[in-house]
Amino acid sequence: MKALVYHGPGQKSLEERPKPRISRATDAVVRVTRTTICGTDLHILKGDVPSCEPGRILGHEGVGIVEEVGDAVSSVRPGDHVLISCITSCARCGYCRRGLYSHCADGGWILGNVIDGTQAEYVRIPHADNSLHPIPAGVEEEALVMLSDILPTGYECGVLNGKIMPGSSVAIVGAGPIGLATLLTAQFFSPAHIIMIDLDDHRLAVAERFGATGVINSGKEDVADAILRLTGARGVDTAIEAVGVPATFELCTRLVAPGGVVANVGVHGTKVDLHLEELWSKNITITTRLVDTVSTPMLMKTVASRKLDPGALITHHFDLDDILDAYDTFSRAAQTEALKVIIRAGQALKP
Amino acid sequence: MKALVYHGPGQKSLEERPKPRISRATDAVVRVTRTTICGTDLHILKGDVPSCEPGRILGHEGVGIVEEVGDAVSSVRPGDHVLISCITSCARCGYCRRGLYSHCADGGWILGNVIDGTQAEYVRIPHADNSLHPIPAGVEEEALVMLSDILPTGYECGVLNGKIMPGSSVAIVGAGPIGLATLLTAQFFSPAHIIMIDLDDHRLAVAERFGATGVINSGKEDVADAILRLTGARGVDTAIEAVGVPATFELCTRLVAPGGVVANVGVHGTKVDLHLEELWSKNITITTRLVDTVSTPMLMKTVASRKLDPGALITHHFDLDDILDAYDTFSRAAQTEALKVIIRAGQALKP
Repeated sequence: MKALVYHGPGQKSLEERPKPRISRATDAVVRVTRTTICGTDLHILKGDVPSCEPGRILGHEGVGIVEEVGDAVSSVRPGDHVLISCITSCARCGYCRRGLYSHCADGGWILGNVIDGTQAEYVRIPHADNSLHPIPAGVEEEALVMLSDILPTGYECGVLNGKIMPGSSVAIVGAGPIGLATLLTAQFFSPAHIIMIDLDDHRLAVAERFGATGVINSGKEDVADAILRLTGARGVDTAIEAVGVPATFELCTRLVAPGGVVANVGVHGTKVDLHLEELWSKNITITTRLVDTVSTPMLMKTVASRKLDPGALITHHFDLDDILDAYDTFSRAAQTEALKVIIRAGQALKP
Repeated sequence: MKALVYHGPGQKSLEERPKPRISRATDAVVRVTRTTICGTDLHILKGDVPSCEPGRILGHEGVGIVEEVGDAVSSVRPGDHVLISCITSCARCGYCRRGLYSHCADGGWILGNVIDGTQAEYVRIPHADNSLHPIPAGVEEEALVMLSDILPTGYECGVLNGKIMPGSSVAIVGAGPIGLATLLTAQFFSPAHIIMIDLDDHRLAVAERFGATGVINSGKEDVADAILRLTGARGVDTAIEAVGVPATFELCTRLVAPGGVVANVGVHGTKVDLHLEELWSKNITITTRLVDTVSTPMLMKTVASRKLDPGALITHHFDLDDILDAYDTFSRAAQTEALKVIIRAGQALKP
């Protein structure tokens, strides 16, 4: 089968690899129909993720059709149309029983990291019963690729951890795909204000189209001043970090009002300064989270009922044969205006 | 009247000052019977609290008898025996209505900071209706001095923010008065393990007597190793910072298990390093809080019903005339084994 393989920092190739097989009774093999590229894949290609070794097939998002299941798998059968979760979880360990699937003792984020991933024609999914989600008939599959990672990440790490509530004020720092996914799902809870902050006017225009009540270009104005002006000198109830660098995290801690929450969504590669000399008395909460994908079934219902249109995040399409072009387009998003790119890995199931 | 007055970094004196008067209709004047010294008073004397200007009477804790009330005060009357809250709150502003009394638009921690405090024979209490708590008959008043600040601080900033639950594991870094107050109130929720960490063997012995299930002297063994050994290589559900320096905060972020909480109680004077490169994916929560004293009425019930004995924290007694000796004893706690020192400011009401 064809697969996109990581060969160490800066190196990847599309090559022929053996089709995966069931290796444990809880596995399934899925024929991938649609996959995508995540910012995390770019992190891997920079060499930022040492757990991902050369030779690994990348990708942790996708939809497909179950090809084969192990003897212990009971919730999906060959031929089933499924969404692949970026998080593999056994549902049995102490962490899983608390809904902390991302810390599963025999799973977590392993796909396209420590085991082969979804940017291929086929993928082996361990703990298939809890790591695959059957897709209801009639739901358009392409948009569902956004539910493998980016939508539950924005929703769980940003919206739920950020305790967004009706009438509250929210600042989202970073209007990339993950910030926009947060913006889309934040609206479930009817906050009064959602202010998007980014350096890129195109992304801010998209944010306005997606429902932001205000936008701030952080290259053109002082964000803290602007937020204080917009919130009556108080700050926001929720500040969401959706970039992953120290400056944006520290900005969030300056934007949040007493009693508020800083919800970190971004993937960070270095430590940050935490100004406890100012924050110790400010009654704030800071949260971190690797997505657990506990909300995926709920999010699928919001898509099926058209309360959420994750397809709006998709800007480009490529065939698996052209995945190197897809990487190029995705990694030059400032020029290409790419948000999420869909990779057609095989024949889709018609809804 | 006699009062302990701050005269700039390192300088204080016991001197004669005019008795305070009602200046707003919502004020009360209280005759102080018992007060105490807080670690924060020592911070002021080091010059760490610029809002506290020379000439200020120190102290934000105490019990006493209402002497006089303004026309708008309705919940206390002259002669009432009252506990003074360290936090002054109007009960009407947006923050107060959310229970964030510490951020009251016309209050917060002002007593012994930006207005004259309780280390005196009399004190003026603004917003007396919400900032004084009537003491039920039969409750011994001396122990209640611990309810002005230290007990609600440990309980709200440590125990409640730390989400301590039955069966959970807790590490408290710092076995000073505030760490011990946290230890006492943590036991309301029946955690499985409460491990106290300090450099001082005497304080650790007190912690064991107060109910700690384990103690670690951080000068003698590696705390992270010891905690991992005690928790099956997992870490604790709740790590409470009760010191206020970068090293102890960073230690807490290393002790906490995925899904856990780092609850900051300490007063910090400098920034700390937050290792988001490790913590971003760890699903942790970090909280900060200046005590709101919203729990004071509840804590008073636990004292009245003998579920809590805050008097156990009191090690020394002094008359107001000897308050300079009290400061000396309190500030040399490592030698004197002082926890909380009671200052007798005037004739107590017999319970």
